[in-house]
Amino acid sequence: MALRLGSIVEALGGELHGDPEVQIQDIAPLDAASSASLSFLSNPKYQQQLAESRAACVIVGPAMRDAALMRGACIVATQPYLYFAKVTQLWKRQHAAGSSAGIHPSAVVDPDAVVDPGATVGALCVVERGARIGAGTVLKSRVTVGENCVVGERCILHPGVVLGADGFGFAPHDGAWVKIEQLGAVRIGNDVEIGANTCVDRGALQDTVIEDGVKLDNLIQIGHNVHIGQHTAMAGCVGVAGSTVIGAHCTFGGAAMVLGHLTIADHVHISSASMVSRSIRRPGHYTGFFPIDDNANWEKNAATLKQLYSLRERLKALEKRIKP
Amino acid sequence: MALRLGSIVEALGGELHGDPEVQIQDIAPLDAASSASLSFLSNPKYQQQLAESRAACVIVGPAMRDAALMRGACIVATQPYLYFAKVTQLWKRQHAAGSSAGIHPSAVVDPDAVVDPGATVGALCVVERGARIGAGTVLKSRVTVGENCVVGERCILHPGVVLGADGFGFAPHDGAWVKIEQLGAVRIGNDVEIGANTCVDRGALQDTVIEDGVKLDNLIQIGHNVHIGQHTAMAGCVGVAGSTVIGAHCTFGGAAMVLGHLTIADHVHISSASMVSRSIRRPGHYTGFFPIDDNANWEKNAATLKQLYSLRERLKALEKRIKP
Amino acid sequence: MALRLGSIVEALGGELHGDPEVQIQDIAPLDAASSASLSFLSNPKYQQQLAESRAACVIVGPAMRDAALMRGACIVATQPYLYFAKVTQLWKRQHAAGSSAGIHPSAVVDPDAVVDPGATVGALCVVERGARIGAGTVLKSRVTVGENCVVGERCILHPGVVLGADGFGFAPHDGAWVKIEQLGAVRIGNDVEIGANTCVDRGALQDTVIEDGVKLDNLIQIGHNVHIGQHTAMAGCVGVAGSTVIGAHCTFGGAAMVLGHLTIADHVHISSASMVSRSIRRPGHYTGFFPIDDNANWEKNAATLKQLYSLRERLKALEKRIKP
Repeated sequence: MALRLGSIVEALGGELHGDPEVQIQDIAPLDAASSASLSFLSNPKYQQQLAESRAACVIVGPAMRDAALMRGACIVATQPYLYFAKVTQLWKRQHAAGSSAGIHPSAVVDPDAVVDPGATVGALCVVERGARIGAGTVLKSRVTVGENCVVGERCILHPGVVLGADGFGFAPHDGAWVKIEQLGAVRIGNDVEIGANTCVDRGALQDTVIEDGVKLDNLIQIGHNVHIGQHTAMAGCVGVAGSTVIGAHCTFGGAAMVLGHLTIADHVHISSASMVSRSIRRPGHYTGFFPIDDNANWEKNAATLKQLYSLRERLKALEKRIKP
Repeated sequence: MALRLGSIVEALGGELHGDPEVQIQDIAPLDAASSASLSFLSNPKYQQQLAESRAACVIVGPAMRDAALMRGACIVATQPYLYFAKVTQLWKRQHAAGSSAGIHPSAVVDPDAVVDPGATVGALCVVERGARIGAGTVLKSRVTVGENCVVGERCILHPGVVLGADGFGFAPHDGAWVKIEQLGAVRIGNDVEIGANTCVDRGALQDTVIEDGVKLDNLIQIGHNVHIGQHTAMAGCVGVAGSTVIGAHCTFGGAAMVLGHLTIADHVHISSASMVSRSIRRPGHYTGFFPIDDNANWEKNAATLKQLYSLRERLKALEKRIKP
Repeated sequence: MALRLGSIVEALGGELHGDPEVQIQDIAPLDAASSASLSFLSNPKYQQQLAESRAACVIVGPAMRDAALMRGACIVATQPYLYFAKVTQLWKRQHAAGSSAGIHPSAVVDPDAVVDPGATVGALCVVERGARIGAGTVLKSRVTVGENCVVGERCILHPGVVLGADGFGFAPHDGAWVKIEQLGAVRIGNDVEIGANTCVDRGALQDTVIEDGVKLDNLIQIGHNVHIGQHTAMAGCVGVAGSTVIGAHCTFGGAAMVLGHLTIADHVHISSASMVSRSIRRPGHYTGFFPIDDNANWEKNAATLKQLYSLRERLKALEKRIKP
């Protein structure tokens, strides 16, 4: 498990200051790096950690070149965080067991599903009739891709993902619920990553759509007929209710929730634990969660909150009386 | 993939105005319908879409008959949304592959489990010792039904469902947790649907019970000894803590949370993302989430929220001083 | 399915008042107990239930001895709830089918994984290359333990658990996301229990760590490089974002959320549905959720909340005018 410094810059570019023959044993944060580690500085506020780091070599941006050189070897890259990401990919390629493409013998793949020869279907996955899996896509273990669902190229689906369970649709009748069969499917673009135990439901009549480059973390629920635009990213435990249309380049913090039938513009950023209860037409950063507090304080403020409207009325009344 | 208009009314009733020999190619919303689509209008506010729709035929209620006839063919039904639901079921029956009942060879079913011959156990499911699966029930792929858990008739369990994992019960002792073995099971009634990756824990001493006709969406957590009454429906990401008793005909919006040991009456409706922290004894609609706002506004208001109680006290003091 | 009263005190100690030959048929709460049940009273506020219970025998603390004796047979134990927990364990040992250790034939275990001979790997589990499973640990059905992840001794992993999916790490580049390969693993200590469909992601560079005695309920998301201290317990649907360090002996109510890169001290207790958006350095009880209310009231108060900051300013202005 080692990588020559020289081989890194040969593969990824960047300007190496130091001995290309040095063998890197691991990649580590500045403060945990050993004398055989490659580290990186992407945020100037950690410059103090740079000075103190024992790392064999540090990836830095041009502005940090001099500070880095005072310490020892470095690789100067225009975008050090991006460079770091590419080093992790290089490292993985060098050290991963050759988990070559193909269908694990324990997977259950319907004869009428189409799995590209360049795709990987892991242990104990289920790929149903009419499903299609694109080239370079990896289904880790225990993934279900339901009937007629389509996954593009170079996607990663982590264990426990369920694509194409029925959307939640019922017609009320005499106090009971009559099932609306979900006749659509799920369409996933290229370069999409979907986290462990995340669910994307099939559409009622038309398809649920996840566009290229979307990244979904673990335990996310995407309802039927949702449409998520390119390169939008959602952290864990997010939920999106049915038929909501989300733009491109949005981000959703963990456990954010979005009601159904809404429209969210491109470049909208939702804070964690916020409830999106209305459409958002303008790019920006939106938040809505109750600030945490010492429980005793919270109790007093929460109790008062139930009178907030009447407090406003009382304030108005006072203002009227005082205004001359 | 087609259905004669005439065969629909033969199967489901309703009053067809139009040529029964027309072949329907798909079911689609009014605005997406092609000239070979069957569509429906259940909410009068979409009447404009009706006029403009290219659908071959539209399902409408009696009040919309004239408006529909001006446009073209229609089926008049007393409850058009219910009729639409039944059409989706008819469509599914006509077009689904004959996924006949039985146990998939990859499923692991304990010899001491009882699976009705009319039940379906999908790929890579696990049915443990003493479990019982009723007639007409379908376990999609990768479902676990734990020891001694009972599932009624005509239920649907979507991929990744876990029935009968241990409830979360521990006795604190010297700073550590001593496990309370969960000796109860899970009992699911008839006509229950449970969404992908949803979990229903087994009871501690007695059973966790889900009554007939309950519908649970994806990624829901039902704690031990919870009891959910008939025809209650819960959207995705809901959590219900242990020993809470929920009435019949309730609805819970996505990500609503319910504390343990509470009682919720029949016909209670909880908004999405609301935290039920006390018993609710009266039918009605209840809500509790922080309204989303532009982040900068939220920050100002959230900061002030921590002084809300003292603001009230200051307001009171002012009122006293001003009152003559 | 029965247990002699005498055999219980022989195994667990405690002071039996009553006939040791009585056969207990089940363990039940006071109010549901039959004349063949063993029950327990751990909270003095249920003393009335004690008097009325039909239980064959009741476990009580020393302070309740006299009250219990007036009713009938009892076992007096210093800590009756702990004693009850141990009785459930005894019951389980006596009545469980001998689910002896070993690897279920349907599980997929990599030849380069190390499973202790005293561990149990259930049906349809996946244990990847380099993973290690300690003695006495039980993987229920359909668990995935990813590459190089380590699980200690006497752990219980419930169905659907995913250890070692990739953490959510990407570098933004030209509007898209470049994957940061997750090169760390997951390390789980001893006596850890992890609930159904819960996910613990592998670290980016170093490991995600769960210390001894931690208890995680169902559908929990633990991000990469999180560190959870000994004997901390989390109820269902909790989420912890990346790199957060949580102390020992903490408790998290259901659906509590914790942002990334925070530090939570030992002995911190977070209420259900609360969003932890800042580090918490002092032990205590913290809360932050919007109190539920009748929807009409909520709407009025929530609307006013958006003016809270300006209400404060108006109040200040009034105070100034009145003060002289």
